[in-house]
Amino acid sequence: MAELKNDRFLRALMRQPVDVTPVWMMRQAGRYLPEYRATRAKAGSFMDLCTNPELACEVTLQPLERYPLDAAILFSDILTIPDAMGLGLYFEEGEGPRFKKVVENAADIEALPVVDTLKDLSYVTDAVRTIRRELNGRVPLIGFSGSPWTLATYMVEGGSSKDFRKVKTMAYNDPEMMKALLNKLVASVTDYLNAQIDAGAQAVQIFDTWGGALSHDAYRQFSLDPMARIVAGLKKESEGRPIPVILFTKGGGQWLDAMADTGCHALGLDWTTDIGNARTLVGEKVALQGNMDPAILNANPERIREEIARILARFGRGGGHIFNLGHGITPKIDPANVDVFINSVHELSAPYHQ
Amino acid sequence: MAELKNDRFLRALMRQPVDVTPVWMMRQAGRYLPEYRATRAKAGSFMDLCTNPELACEVTLQPLERYPLDAAILFSDILTIPDAMGLGLYFEEGEGPRFKKVVENAADIEALPVVDTLKDLSYVTDAVRTIRRELNGRVPLIGFSGSPWTLATYMVEGGSSKDFRKVKTMAYNDPEMMKALLNKLVASVTDYLNAQIDAGAQAVQIFDTWGGALSHDAYRQFSLDPMARIVAGLKKESEGRPIPVILFTKGGGQWLDAMADTGCHALGLDWTTDIGNARTLVGEKVALQGNMDPAILNANPERIREEIARILARFGRGGGHIFNLGHGITPKIDPANVDVFINSVHELSAPYHQ
Repeated sequence: MAELKNDRFLRALMRQPVDVTPVWMMRQAGRYLPEYRATRAKAGSFMDLCTNPELACEVTLQPLERYPLDAAILFSDILTIPDAMGLGLYFEEGEGPRFKKVVENAADIEALPVVDTLKDLSYVTDAVRTIRRELNGRVPLIGFSGSPWTLATYMVEGGSSKDFRKVKTMAYNDPEMMKALLNKLVASVTDYLNAQIDAGAQAVQIFDTWGGALSHDAYRQFSLDPMARIVAGLKKESEGRPIPVILFTKGGGQWLDAMADTGCHALGLDWTTDIGNARTLVGEKVALQGNMDPAILNANPERIREEIARILARFGRGGGHIFNLGHGITPKIDPANVDVFINSVHELSAPYHQ
Repeated sequence: MAELKNDRFLRALMRQPVDVTPVWMMRQAGRYLPEYRATRAKAGSFMDLCTNPELACEVTLQPLERYPLDAAILFSDILTIPDAMGLGLYFEEGEGPRFKKVVENAADIEALPVVDTLKDLSYVTDAVRTIRRELNGRVPLIGFSGSPWTLATYMVEGGSSKDFRKVKTMAYNDPEMMKALLNKLVASVTDYLNAQIDAGAQAVQIFDTWGGALSHDAYRQFSLDPMARIVAGLKKESEGRPIPVILFTKGGGQWLDAMADTGCHALGLDWTTDIGNARTLVGEKVALQGNMDPAILNANPERIREEIARILARFGRGGGHIFNLGHGITPKIDPANVDVFINSVHELSAPYHQ
């Protein structure tokens, strides 16, 4: 493997000194970029793009051609695992993800296989290898997975949901049934992330998009505990470097102390959390990633810089901060504003690292 | 006015001793009740129901006929104010609320009138008077309004929104323009709630449904500050009793300390907050209302009772707790489970008040 030329992101995850605060964006390869839309059109369906390692590599690298980002993230979907379990993922225009089969009872859960990544999801590990080769050491590559709870919501609801009625009814009425489902997902996600690490992922992030829909107690039981078991099962290092793990629960701002105790290396913060308060709370346990409201990227450049300055000041001096948005970048953002964002993070953060 | 026979709710809001924990449900007059659906069908459109004081009274009282609730809440919609400002509220089946006109610029804001409730929204004060007469002192009546920020989101977006792109762009790019809009809403909501108090509302709640979409700092500026100004402008007592004010920001669990400093009497909590932690945080400043996940009402009766017991135990002994759901009851709930819920709160809470 080529030597890593920019290791700011990995250093910050380990709370080591850096020259400037590293920055990347959730969903940085996405619809706001015209070149992404062109590749997407060429690929056919969204899943055709995800399952083609050369095209997945192409869109992964597109934002790095435009912006001095400090990390690349594998282009894929969080629902590859339930798809590989046989549920039949598809996308309806403007409707979000859907499954042909849904999980409704104990027999459905019993019938689900645990994913064997190298056999069932080789297109993902192929994409990781291809991206690492093409990155050629420019920046580290992040692998990722959806959290077990988040995957379970789609598998039981059959798609997106507003109130999570079916999956919560299953969890509340029959916690043992829900745990049987989550156990298969813990095993599958652990295998999936370890396979990504073996293929070349240099850090991994678990996206817990829907943990924030749970109550304080139910979150611990159904979302955090499965994630903690995954963290415990991950490879600790690869290529002679530690593999940092980032946990991101959207809407998890009240639960950061418990998240920091899972053994992960960093917490992703959405924009509702004050990053200064979060740093005080987690102390030296973990690094923090975030947390600008993506909607700020609709504002003018001066306002974007103001908000970056505010977040940097709240975090304060020293390492352990990876700048990011508090959630994925949205499709209508002007790519020119992203340029302001990425460059301003580097420029405005330098004094905090002197 | 008839003497109040059950004042548990008002006593708990003032953190005075009670015999059992009072309980009501947000959206307790709603689609889960067959008798509501019958009245709604008879009325015509949803707005026909809201604007007819006799029918609004009828649906307000329906849940009290079934359950030993400790409060009634005016049946109305949070969007009556923007409608009265001339934006033309309508509902499309399955689409949520929409406005014929949207607020896009300074001229639109300049043109908006401040609402004069007695002239523009007399159907609401008529409904309050009718309900008080028909309640005949059984339980207190709660008046309510949407928060200025929440109303502004609908007025600028033209309806519901997933990412609040337009309203956040206005707030971030031109905070002064947003404040001009919020100032008109502060004046209108203050007038609206004071008119409800004059007409007989015995407590008021401000529903800040979308404050939780803002960042930590933007929440203070665009949602909390306008609510604090409303609290300061409300009538302190009526009919010889204080008028307690409840603030409810959905997703506001990280901001309870700031909310408790507004001068309100109680905070509504959604289900993501641990009510024991919240009580420790706010101390003797305010009462707490909440906070069971409405989805628990889809579970079996034993599970519902377990969850009530857990929340009561977390709050602990003494007054200052009004039991409620963490958000409105959803349409598919079985009315029999609501019976279990309401009665179990009374039964299981008695030991905490001995």
